[in-house]
Amino acid sequence: MKISHIEHLGIAVKSLEQAIPYYENILGMKCYSVEEVADQKVKTAFFMVGQTKIELLEATGPESTVAKFIEKKGEGIHHLAFAVEDGVENALKEVEEKGVRLIDKAPRKGAEGLNIAFLHPKSTLGVLTELCEDPEKK
Amino acid sequence: MKISHIEHLGIAVKSLEQAIPYYENILGMKCYSVEEVADQKVKTAFFMVGQTKIELLEATGPESTVAKFIEKKGEGIHHLAFAVEDGVENALKEVEEKGVRLIDKAPRKGAEGLNIAFLHPKSTLGVLTELCEDPEKK
Repeated sequence: MKISHIEHLGIAVKSLEQAIPYYENILGMKCYSVEEVADQKVKTAFFMVGQTKIELLEATGPESTVAKFIEKKGEGIHHLAFAVEDGVENALKEVEEKGVRLIDKAPRKGAEGLNIAFLHPKSTLGVLTELCEDPEKK
Repeated sequence: MKISHIEHLGIAVKSLEQAIPYYENILGMKCYSVEEVADQKVKTAFFMVGQTKIELLEATGPESTVAKFIEKKGEGIHHLAFAVEDGVENALKEVEEKGVRLIDKAPRKGAEGLNIAFLHPKSTLGVLTELCEDPEKK
């Protein structure tokens, strides 16, 4: 697998309304997009920092994995997403052959139209890991 | 404060000896440096991913904050470090005036010779946040 850069960092927050002003006023970043990802039951807010996005995640219901994460661990960094150069499907096949446990057996659509898939944190030393590709950059 | 990019991402691991092969063989990254930071009681291993470093952190003793982190939360992402353009000292002054609680009141030396300071996760929505500058790039 060839990773070009950290595509984004997902950060679980209780409230976008409270979190966006922290990122804008204290850290000096600019929120450029707010998007709801219905099938993941989250509302997201995006900021660009160099070549990496920060994706704030607010749960839209108690059964959201983000709600469960906050209940268990509190607010904080939720997942790490790498941009892969050779396609998510190839990367999944490669890491599965090497014994990595997958959450997604095949790529699916994530925020911002990316093809994404998650690896299981039991196989990735505790880091919930997402692989991403932008289908428009193929 | 002006942040140029994510300087590094600190990831707490139980054992560098086990973690380095995962990052090299599964994720395809290359460890370019292993360094002990005695005053933080950690041994670190560095990988470059685009413009951001991944810094794996192994505790060198049970009283290390990394050992306590793993005991409480398990292995996983420990902190997020931003490269600031206008100097860590100025950034600390600015965020303290805005009510952010500081762990370090003044910059100190971190791994790789950077000037660094940590903000308290109680003020940063649960994300242990480090500010960095490379004194040689001033």
